[in-house]
Amino acid sequence: MSEAVITHLVSQRNAILERLKALLRMPSISTDPQFGGGMRDAREFLLGRLRDLGLKNVQAMDGGGHPAVFAEWTGAPGKPTLIVYGHYDVQPADPLELWETPPFEPTERDGRLYARGASDVKGSTTVALESIGAFLTTAGALPCNVKLFIEGEEESGSPSLRTLVDRNRDKLQADAMLSADGARGSTTFPTVGIGGRGLAGLEFTLRTAAKDGHSGRYGGATRNALVEMAALIATLHDHEGRIQVKGFADDAAPITNDARAAAAALSFDERQFYTDIGGLEWGDPAYTVRERTTIRPTIELNGMWGGYTGPGSKTVLPSEARAKITMRLAPGMDPHRAGQTLREHLQSHVSPGVKLTVTTEKAGTPAPTMPEDHPLLLAASRVLERLRGQKPVPIRSGGTLPVSAIFREMLGIDTLAFGLAMPDEDVHAPNEFFRLSSFDEGLRSWPMLLSEIGKLSAADFAPFRHSVPR
Amino acid sequence: MSEAVITHLVSQRNAILERLKALLRMPSISTDPQFGGGMRDAREFLLGRLRDLGLKNVQAMDGGGHPAVFAEWTGAPGKPTLIVYGHYDVQPADPLELWETPPFEPTERDGRLYARGASDVKGSTTVALESIGAFLTTAGALPCNVKLFIEGEEESGSPSLRTLVDRNRDKLQADAMLSADGARGSTTFPTVGIGGRGLAGLEFTLRTAAKDGHSGRYGGATRNALVEMAALIATLHDHEGRIQVKGFADDAAPITNDARAAAAALSFDERQFYTDIGGLEWGDPAYTVRERTTIRPTIELNGMWGGYTGPGSKTVLPSEARAKITMRLAPGMDPHRAGQTLREHLQSHVSPGVKLTVTTEKAGTPAPTMPEDHPLLLAASRVLERLRGQKPVPIRSGGTLPVSAIFREMLGIDTLAFGLAMPDEDVHAPNEFFRLSSFDEGLRSWPMLLSEIGKLSAADFAPFRHSVPR
Repeated sequence: MSEAVITHLVSQRNAILERLKALLRMPSISTDPQFGGGMRDAREFLLGRLRDLGLKNVQAMDGGGHPAVFAEWTGAPGKPTLIVYGHYDVQPADPLELWETPPFEPTERDGRLYARGASDVKGSTTVALESIGAFLTTAGALPCNVKLFIEGEEESGSPSLRTLVDRNRDKLQADAMLSADGARGSTTFPTVGIGGRGLAGLEFTLRTAAKDGHSGRYGGATRNALVEMAALIATLHDHEGRIQVKGFADDAAPITNDARAAAAALSFDERQFYTDIGGLEWGDPAYTVRERTTIRPTIELNGMWGGYTGPGSKTVLPSEARAKITMRLAPGMDPHRAGQTLREHLQSHVSPGVKLTVTTEKAGTPAPTMPEDHPLLLAASRVLERLRGQKPVPIRSGGTLPVSAIFREMLGIDTLAFGLAMPDEDVHAPNEFFRLSSFDEGLRSWPMLLSEIGKLSAADFAPFRHSVPR
Repeated sequence: MSEAVITHLVSQRNAILERLKALLRMPSISTDPQFGGGMRDAREFLLGRLRDLGLKNVQAMDGGGHPAVFAEWTGAPGKPTLIVYGHYDVQPADPLELWETPPFEPTERDGRLYARGASDVKGSTTVALESIGAFLTTAGALPCNVKLFIEGEEESGSPSLRTLVDRNRDKLQADAMLSADGARGSTTFPTVGIGGRGLAGLEFTLRTAAKDGHSGRYGGATRNALVEMAALIATLHDHEGRIQVKGFADDAAPITNDARAAAAALSFDERQFYTDIGGLEWGDPAYTVRERTTIRPTIELNGMWGGYTGPGSKTVLPSEARAKITMRLAPGMDPHRAGQTLREHLQSHVSPGVKLTVTTEKAGTPAPTMPEDHPLLLAASRVLERLRGQKPVPIRSGGTLPVSAIFREMLGIDTLAFGLAMPDEDVHAPNEFFRLSSFDEGLRSWPMLLSEIGKLSAADFAPFRHSVPR
């Protein structure tokens, strides 16, 4: 069944690429309110395309924030039902001056498509939905039931996803989730993503005085908010990078020998890892770099600022400093508890009298994972082995799909990450790109996987569905 | 002679105040290139006014940066020649959102004039030049020779002042400098300013990677520029605020018992000091607050920033962090040497592999001071005692007039600060204001002081002129 679909997709390749570029031109930055127009444009574009492709019940699904895009085809009774996941929002594009070509003007160079969101994750999302549509176009039917769910808040931590799922539990019933998000682990051999790290975050302010002062008048006898911020942040890690927050990882699942062996089995080139970013090694030396970035937690400063940051100099004694922190959580860690240990650390280490205010706190998501014998994982392995001549390596990602944790908890289903992005494509940084070779591979692997799932029945998935408290 | 001048000034008080407001409406921020128009407007305004007042050789004096405004009247042979100093540039106005009324829309409230530059130092500069002009208007002559020098780069560290003085050494020959800049030490009793702290500064960048990374992929195993910046800044002081930079203050003049007694004699309300800014005590406990802010050096963070600082969150691992630092220098400290010890400290404390680049470094100025028996100081004391019924307390300022150090070094003259600003007027901060009572007092004290100087001869100043290497 997939042969005709692939032939069709290959014949439409350039038209599909043009549609991807059109989507990339829409600046759908969910975290920044001034990009509401770009969010709306991207959503309308996808709704229109899904209607054109013949999907049913095409709709914007609202949870109080940026709506998700939903569509389904459920004409295969007895067959498995997959939620196919992607997201249409992207990370902020700044610092803009470091982009070689504008972030929202997709540009092909050397077999790569450069644009914010090309790799994360409009490229893979486009491949997924066009593959689904191609079955309907060529055969009038899909090999399994599909519920397409394209989120609008992935890059801002999915704040309204729980509400959205709660309002649409029946529509979202499925046997498993197949995600177009979640990058591959290697540029040279095939991988499938079976889990990630959890995420929690907070933003806080330090205030040392009611107002900024003149450094000539107050300097030397008055606390400086930036100096206080530096002293406080410096208590979070030791010099080698071990987290110093008391109790932070106490509830992390013990790292078994099996888990260490699995991390080691994935050939991971540490030298290349640091070369890709031009960066310096850091972190707890008791763990390998691969372990530090996948199964160990982090406390990371994403932003820190205060005082005068314009051109020239200003002899100001700053009264306020701000910081944004996110935590990556190991399997087992409770996001609320992690945030609480961090807050307690900050409060107990800030200098006496300095006012610490947590201004924003994310609900957070725990780290999700998929069982080794899950039928979706096995099907994906067969497809990739057929296509690439090599069994894929199951990997845990260092990043976080809140949707995986939330769908596991609220819908009882596991997630397989079958995204096409590769680990060096500068997602969340300037000059993000997506390999056109990945785009072309996806136009084969996605139809093949949907066909492979069609060989199974819903009953095959039943043992892997988790009970859900209603 | 000053009676008629004061009568004239008082009759013109409202017109003079309107001219001050016009000057305050011009956003003359010297440190930020986008305010070049405001700088030009303020300069042209002053040049025009000085011509109208009948000063001679009115001109913009160029040193390669923002020109100074110069004018003179030298029709009193044998009498002392004063450089009367002010500046027409102001500090940046941000954070703009904290101003109750716009910074460049001067507003009177409760006997105060609110505007950026009202206190520092367009208010006192206006009083000085209008007082000088009033002698010419009413008597056609001044009691002594005057060279008015209104700088355009005081708030950006006077980068071209040395060049400017070097090009105009002959025009700038004088017996002493009388400065309209340099705030008074008290809101309740009279003071005169006999010196300040020196100033040096630098801006630097830390780079931990070639580019920003995704915190899911790189977090936990890669150095974060913000964490590195925090750790580095945290090494500059101990928890109580003692400077930890090796050798930093080794060349500071010993603090004599006399100096400590002089600092103590100035009744200084520590509680009020901290109440004014709503701030917290800090600094070396071996010194009083007054000593820490006048005769001891500081290392102060004026700005620190990096990573994502926009709305919402961004899971970025930042590769670059920046900081702006200025140092206040005690008498005796060499600015170049101070900067060098700080650079050496930063370089020796930054984590291995992290790239530290000093992007800007100011030439800096040492701390100037005026002898106790200087005729200008004695004349000012007599005038203030007559006007206020109380001998003024000579004070050292915590701030810095680079011009005092440079004129001392290049022209051999000392500076007396006779400014009208008071210490609580939020200079360099939002809602800067100038007391209208100070404005009115200045329209009396300035003509009185010029008349008092007129009772002396140039010969009285000769013993106090320093030799200058040519």
